[in-house]
Amino acid sequence: MESKISFKNDYSEGAHPKVLELLQQTNLSQEPGYGADSISQKAKEYIIRATKNPDAQVFFVSGGTQANLLVISHLLKPYESVIAADSGHIEVHETGAIENTGHKINLIPNINGKIKGAEIQKIVNNHTDNHMVKPAMVYISQSTEFGTVYSKNELQDIANCCKKNNLLLFIDGARLATALTSQSNDLTLQEIAKLADVFYIGGTKNGALLGEAIVFQNKRLAEGFDFTLKQKGALMAKGRLLGAQFLALFQDDLFFELGFHANKLASKIANIFKQNGYDFATEPVSNQIFPILPISIAEKLMEKYDFYIWEKLEDNMVTLRIVTSWATQESSVDQFIKDISKNLG
Amino acid sequence: MESKISFKNDYSEGAHPKVLELLQQTNLSQEPGYGADSISQKAKEYIIRATKNPDAQVFFVSGGTQANLLVISHLLKPYESVIAADSGHIEVHETGAIENTGHKINLIPNINGKIKGAEIQKIVNNHTDNHMVKPAMVYISQSTEFGTVYSKNELQDIANCCKKNNLLLFIDGARLATALTSQSNDLTLQEIAKLADVFYIGGTKNGALLGEAIVFQNKRLAEGFDFTLKQKGALMAKGRLLGAQFLALFQDDLFFELGFHANKLASKIANIFKQNGYDFATEPVSNQIFPILPISIAEKLMEKYDFYIWEKLEDNMVTLRIVTSWATQESSVDQFIKDISKNLG
Amino acid sequence: MESKISFKNDYSEGAHPKVLELLQQTNLSQEPGYGADSISQKAKEYIIRATKNPDAQVFFVSGGTQANLLVISHLLKPYESVIAADSGHIEVHETGAIENTGHKINLIPNINGKIKGAEIQKIVNNHTDNHMVKPAMVYISQSTEFGTVYSKNELQDIANCCKKNNLLLFIDGARLATALTSQSNDLTLQEIAKLADVFYIGGTKNGALLGEAIVFQNKRLAEGFDFTLKQKGALMAKGRLLGAQFLALFQDDLFFELGFHANKLASKIANIFKQNGYDFATEPVSNQIFPILPISIAEKLMEKYDFYIWEKLEDNMVTLRIVTSWATQESSVDQFIKDISKNLG
Amino acid sequence: MESKISFKNDYSEGAHPKVLELLQQTNLSQEPGYGADSISQKAKEYIIRATKNPDAQVFFVSGGTQANLLVISHLLKPYESVIAADSGHIEVHETGAIENTGHKINLIPNINGKIKGAEIQKIVNNHTDNHMVKPAMVYISQSTEFGTVYSKNELQDIANCCKKNNLLLFIDGARLATALTSQSNDLTLQEIAKLADVFYIGGTKNGALLGEAIVFQNKRLAEGFDFTLKQKGALMAKGRLLGAQFLALFQDDLFFELGFHANKLASKIANIFKQNGYDFATEPVSNQIFPILPISIAEKLMEKYDFYIWEKLEDNMVTLRIVTSWATQESSVDQFIKDISKNLG
Repeated sequence: MESKISFKNDYSEGAHPKVLELLQQTNLSQEPGYGADSISQKAKEYIIRATKNPDAQVFFVSGGTQANLLVISHLLKPYESVIAADSGHIEVHETGAIENTGHKINLIPNINGKIKGAEIQKIVNNHTDNHMVKPAMVYISQSTEFGTVYSKNELQDIANCCKKNNLLLFIDGARLATALTSQSNDLTLQEIAKLADVFYIGGTKNGALLGEAIVFQNKRLAEGFDFTLKQKGALMAKGRLLGAQFLALFQDDLFFELGFHANKLASKIANIFKQNGYDFATEPVSNQIFPILPISIAEKLMEKYDFYIWEKLEDNMVTLRIVTSWATQESSVDQFIKDISKNLG
Repeated sequence: MESKISFKNDYSEGAHPKVLELLQQTNLSQEPGYGADSISQKAKEYIIRATKNPDAQVFFVSGGTQANLLVISHLLKPYESVIAADSGHIEVHETGAIENTGHKINLIPNINGKIKGAEIQKIVNNHTDNHMVKPAMVYISQSTEFGTVYSKNELQDIANCCKKNNLLLFIDGARLATALTSQSNDLTLQEIAKLADVFYIGGTKNGALLGEAIVFQNKRLAEGFDFTLKQKGALMAKGRLLGAQFLALFQDDLFFELGFHANKLASKIANIFKQNGYDFATEPVSNQIFPILPISIAEKLMEKYDFYIWEKLEDNMVTLRIVTSWATQESSVDQFIKDISKNLG
Repeated sequence: MESKISFKNDYSEGAHPKVLELLQQTNLSQEPGYGADSISQKAKEYIIRATKNPDAQVFFVSGGTQANLLVISHLLKPYESVIAADSGHIEVHETGAIENTGHKINLIPNINGKIKGAEIQKIVNNHTDNHMVKPAMVYISQSTEFGTVYSKNELQDIANCCKKNNLLLFIDGARLATALTSQSNDLTLQEIAKLADVFYIGGTKNGALLGEAIVFQNKRLAEGFDFTLKQKGALMAKGRLLGAQFLALFQDDLFFELGFHANKLASKIANIFKQNGYDFATEPVSNQIFPILPISIAEKLMEKYDFYIWEKLEDNMVTLRIVTSWATQESSVDQFIKDISKNLG
Repeated sequence: MESKISFKNDYSEGAHPKVLELLQQTNLSQEPGYGADSISQKAKEYIIRATKNPDAQVFFVSGGTQANLLVISHLLKPYESVIAADSGHIEVHETGAIENTGHKINLIPNINGKIKGAEIQKIVNNHTDNHMVKPAMVYISQSTEFGTVYSKNELQDIANCCKKNNLLLFIDGARLATALTSQSNDLTLQEIAKLADVFYIGGTKNGALLGEAIVFQNKRLAEGFDFTLKQKGALMAKGRLLGAQFLALFQDDLFFELGFHANKLASKIANIFKQNGYDFATEPVSNQIFPILPISIAEKLMEKYDFYIWEKLEDNMVTLRIVTSWATQESSVDQFIKDISKNLG
């Protein structure tokens, strides 16, 4: 039944073989529990080195929603809120996880999944007294839920606004690998680590079985986070499992190679649409692309391939969401391209 | 540095080789995310079969504290409380996770880690009006935090009291494998599944990399639990990882074999203390044993072995906690026994 | 300093003299605490009679935000959400009180402070799986935050949509008195009590020192609400204080008379703007009116009167919010009208 | 039916006549809402003067449970806990209000309603890592739930332990008036204000219709508390109502006179038991006394008087709780004493 090739998401397969290998190699060594193991320690060192911030504090957790609710509830006082795009993952697809920890999300209408400093400033200006929440954090995703990537200028603009208004900047990096290896990217991991007060590096969608690496800029922000982890059920007994994912990804350049691979294949697919004169809902620059097609062609493709119809448009047009990953095979993409060409032609 | 043999806990190693094998075999098949994968489906079927309750609803989560907070917050109204032993894991070692979801724990002084129906009844009787919380659930652990195991009569007594007072019965089975394979056990998995409204089967401490299988007795109790999972950050994108753990444990008798192995080795260690006339804080019947020794002997043993000093007693005596697991090697135990004998003699 | 006449809000004065009289008369009788007093009992009977629903369950609390957070957190499961206008009090002016109890608010862009069944239906349709909250309640205000009043048809449309989608309907009646006595009103208190699953009758803004009367349609909805009251700090030791407010308001027609008075004076003020050709942001039908004036005239009036500049518009125009109450004196209004005429002329 | 004279509690009557007078006098002046009124400002000044701490920050709320949950949830981080006596009001009689805000209560077995520094230290010592909550506050009541009063030495001992362990000290003063005017008291209001980081002054049980005055020692502790008030539904629109209670109580010595009156009458009742050789569960020093009598005599007295049977003891003895208040009439007490004498004799 699962015989169609899937471009539905970037978590359809297990782990990159190097992750499984490392699990295998380290499997029977006795290690302390709850993240105090030597594998996690090594992985953290690699990440700290990669961010070039020796003060950075790294914690591994199992998934993105968990990372988001942990970080936000840890850093905000009960009456403080987080500002986000109305397309932000915390707003749209986390079953009210943030509100369930007690915090309101203040929304900004997104433009291609992004927000700007000026819009953040407006929200701050509108929150004038104790009858409203007190905005204290900005949440953005890199790459965004619409596959776009903030440029250095755009991120600097947001960071400046945060600094000026005493807001923390939190970057959801569930898809950070494809952002950092996007053709349109002009930001390094070090720059992101410098501009964000806290961010996380997604493993789940980039070759790991599970895992996100939360990186706080300093000890003050991370203080007590080990208590928060345990209290919210996020502290894994065999923390080595999480450590091994990130050790495999960061002890050489695997993390970046996998992101690059996903982007390259997405780009190949995007080009075939472009060449045939089709448009996109957002500029295709990472591993999620959103071509706009006649519904008849989409349906034809869906006979052999899995992907989401993202939105129904006027005139029998639809926006698709097509996602590639570290595990996508070039041969699958080539076949897809052939079938696209045939149907578009 | 980690060169001492550790009897500190049952989560020092990775996974049983069969678990890793299964991960390897299924690694590159494309599967739907968030628990809808075919591996998880198969694992659930094996568990449902093992409980002999076709109405059972099974959910996989990553750890014990997470399982506890999910189940309790899912089933209680805001003003309802859960009754537990004062030695219960939710009371002592979960950083206030239950209270953080809004619920009070009503405590019963434990006897060897256990509670009784009569004590539960007293608490119910004392909660008479709306100035107090409304007890609505009983939480027990099997095996308990002190290594003891509820007998069928004892569990029936608690279940009767729950039924009579309209309380839900929730069994924390983080160490259910060693309970079910204890020499003193007279309960089957089916009986536990029948007496409990909800319980979970621990994987983390019995051969899995991670994972607990929560089993609700019927659909009504489980209604909306998929929302609860997502909202609390417990829904894993690659649910197949959790499914594979339990498929490996339950597609044959591995789950029970591993529990039996741990118990057998613990029993061997217990016997050597018994033979030398030493006492235990609680009767040693599962994989956690609590011998009472002179501190001088304990310190001698700690030069070569890792375990916890559980409690300091009078007259320079201490209670140790010694834990075996599925991964404990018989040769390590034999060496330990030899060293114990030498020191006790 | 407080010498300007204030049209800023409807809670600037203390209580209607009849309320104080009743407090005085009953002051030294010994009564049980926590709402079990005979004064509260009598007040509840009057309210039940007025709603013509003998199954109604009435509870008194101290204020509107408290009423909102109590009702919503009482009736929703953790993963359920409430649908509201983006102008709704719970969204805009309650410091995230609803989110602080764990619940998301799903927003509908308001039209003159109102929402429609069709918009509610869209939200329900968009919430398709467990990655999103589950809408379970609709919150509206009568009269609305913009002074408008739902007609019978409009309310019936919302109630139908709720019924069809299994949503609870909750009406915030902080200003129910001015809604029920509005010139444009075609709804009775009995009809509101029948269409809403739960609503409250505002005392604070209609002659009481404090107090809102929450009315559940039946026992099932109210079950355990006495526990919720206590747990959230809303159960007043001297419940008689709240009971006395509503006994004074409902033992004769005082509640309606006071609403009528506020509306009549607001209408007088509205007419003078209309006569001079000025427009309103929303149709002026209750005790809050929103005339649109040149800023120069607004500033002139602010020398002698207090009111809010609600919004700055283009072309040096502003929207004012002018509020009357049970305590507004006709002579103050007449003087205000004279000054308006002088400045508009 | 309410014809028996009640010694059940200290909130059976309305307000002291001077409170009602002040409400009457100020009733129709226009005042800003939400606590910004001139009456509340004046009341705060009197309280600040009485505490002799010009940095003190005062907030009025409606009741004791509300005050407790506001202060505790405001000052603790999510994973921090509050230490209290197992007889503490927050533990026993607030329907899990503290847990509902997310915080665990660490219990100390009370001795006559009190706790000691040494016991607090033990709890701190036992909380060693992130698998347990982090104690961050101590909660005590003055006078206690058993009518006893901490001496200066006892309070200093607790405060010293708090300082040493970086714990905040919070004093529940719902019955502070009777503590400060107890025959056994050696503490001034100023000393309490100096030793506590935050405390509150009870109005409800000492002559007010409602109201507790929360006093933070400085601005840093109170920062954002106005947001907390609004978010938890505790900010009253007509804050003047609360201000007036405390203005009446503190503009002269009324607060202390009323406490003295209650104590004096309780003492009169206590003496008659003492003279007849009866014992008390705790030393009778404030307005709550706990004499131990044969159940037959208690039942005889209950024919004409209302009070609680606090506890059933062996040998047909019971502990009563008898409570006097500012409103208790000396004639009622004299009659009670006569009836006691008759029955004891």
